[in-house]
Amino acid sequence: MEVRDGVVLAIHGGAGTILRERMTPELDREYRTALAGALLAGHQVLAAGGRAEEAVVAAIRPLEDSPLFNAGRGAVLNDDGAVELDASIMLGSSGMAGAVAGVTRVRHPIEAAVRVMTETEHVLLAGPGADRFIAQQGLELAEPEWFVSPHRELQLRQLQAEDVSQVAPEGPGSGHKFGTVGCVALDIAGHLAAGTSTGGMARKAWGRVGDSPVIGAGTWAADETCAVSCTGHGEFFIRKAIAHQIHARMLHGGAGIEEAARGAVLEDLPDGGGSGGCVALDARGRFVAPFTTPGMYRGWIDARGQVTVRIHGDER
Amino acid sequence: MEVRDGVVLAIHGGAGTILRERMTPELDREYRTALAGALLAGHQVLAAGGRAEEAVVAAIRPLEDSPLFNAGRGAVLNDDGAVELDASIMLGSSGMAGAVAGVTRVRHPIEAAVRVMTETEHVLLAGPGADRFIAQQGLELAEPEWFVSPHRELQLRQLQAEDVSQVAPEGPGSGHKFGTVGCVALDIAGHLAAGTSTGGMARKAWGRVGDSPVIGAGTWAADETCAVSCTGHGEFFIRKAIAHQIHARMLHGGAGIEEAARGAVLEDLPDGGGSGGCVALDARGRFVAPFTTPGMYRGWIDARGQVTVRIHGDER
Repeated sequence: MEVRDGVVLAIHGGAGTILRERMTPELDREYRTALAGALLAGHQVLAAGGRAEEAVVAAIRPLEDSPLFNAGRGAVLNDDGAVELDASIMLGSSGMAGAVAGVTRVRHPIEAAVRVMTETEHVLLAGPGADRFIAQQGLELAEPEWFVSPHRELQLRQLQAEDVSQVAPEGPGSGHKFGTVGCVALDIAGHLAAGTSTGGMARKAWGRVGDSPVIGAGTWAADETCAVSCTGHGEFFIRKAIAHQIHARMLHGGAGIEEAARGAVLEDLPDGGGSGGCVALDARGRFVAPFTTPGMYRGWIDARGQVTVRIHGDER
Repeated sequence: MEVRDGVVLAIHGGAGTILRERMTPELDREYRTALAGALLAGHQVLAAGGRAEEAVVAAIRPLEDSPLFNAGRGAVLNDDGAVELDASIMLGSSGMAGAVAGVTRVRHPIEAAVRVMTETEHVLLAGPGADRFIAQQGLELAEPEWFVSPHRELQLRQLQAEDVSQVAPEGPGSGHKFGTVGCVALDIAGHLAAGTSTGGMARKAWGRVGDSPVIGAGTWAADETCAVSCTGHGEFFIRKAIAHQIHARMLHGGAGIEEAARGAVLEDLPDGGGSGGCVALDARGRFVAPFTTPGMYRGWIDARGQVTVRIHGDER
């Protein structure tokens, strides 16, 4: 949990109970390879002089395409067996933001969030209306079957059979209900950006929207403080406005990024009964990734392209 | 804009360009009567020892039923000529919250927000799924025609004819695009609550969601700081997390309610290009209602039932 220096981009792939006994060597390698690939994709953009938000999109896209993570392909299924995808992005330079909630057809929800930000006067579009906007934008769509992976169908059947409403272990073949992917980036101009993408909560009903598309809850970016992407039980992140809380602890409380992120995630969040984690990066390249869970898929990369990937909480 | 003491409940009915030349004496009286009625309805709950959130609902219900305000009946129409209603509620005692976005059939959206808070593990339900939840809850529904008032149909036709995308003057018969109702309350146990309800933006498309159902943007309540309900151009309130920002300026910055609310609404909001206002009440009964617009429908009531109602910015 210590502060890392010189980080230019960091990602998470969800926080939860990641049990070593359920994690085969092959699966462990698949996760680490996917995380490293996303870090390198984002780094490539930054190394070429790209903007922070472009790097965020470049890192999140492969995570959305991977069936390992609860975002895009491989997203959890709602009670009807379909995906409802949420994503958001925010720029530290201008405070501009975009988000979609409950969309069903776009291959890369993070790109839809970008279009809301750049092509409309709005911040958040939801449901069938958001799907119509996406279709008008000509973003790449995918058939419903493309998103559905066998382990998510098994998970849904298990949840429906057991009527489980609690968080279960993370990972394919296990029954985890939550999960998110997210990225924070710092570009050579000194600007920050943050993005988050998720399938939300397994077996969700009634158009439930979690924290990922809620600016201030799951995502925040301000150059003067930090870029944040959160993961965990979303309702608790909304009730505590965790992402904005980290910003506010820095801006109004004078905290550094470590104190602010630890305070919000390790104190405020459990104080409200919540669990999860975040990645947080300031404009000086200082990075922290606090989480309350036994594990969080995470990784970071420095300007030279040095990659670090972690899964369990006890990894140094 | 000075601080009022001894306030137990306050409301707003939207902020904007409220032009005296468009306001007939009859219409002025209708607005003031509706605001006073809502204040008295909320006060009655508090005087009987009811909880803050019960008073918030009691005050918002008649505003939702009034065609004068952009919430419930009289809500603005989307580009298809239908209403899409948003609402939220938050408790200062526990931090529990509930919200709905883009619902179309419930007579009192604020009651739907309460049900999300009390009857689900979720905070935010959106779109057709939220309408299904509402139907299951047995809340009072209304036919689509019930919500539509003649001046909103005229407004929509005008907007569609002119392709207007800017804020226009407030009031029936004029072309205002925004508007919200909201309430903050303090009960005899010393607990705060805040609620907000709106039809959103006139001629909205694509399932646009504004700040009203976003906890931290349009609504916030924490007993240790304040209860806040916002109104204005919602996107800017989301990008600045205005409601949570007021809380954070008090909690982390040590500001009092006046400094915090003025800072967020009169500095942070315009700094991002936004306009609007809020009502903010702390647990000691201190109340402020800053706004950047020429007017804001607003009112407050003290423990003895003394009512004050204001419309224009230059009213003392």
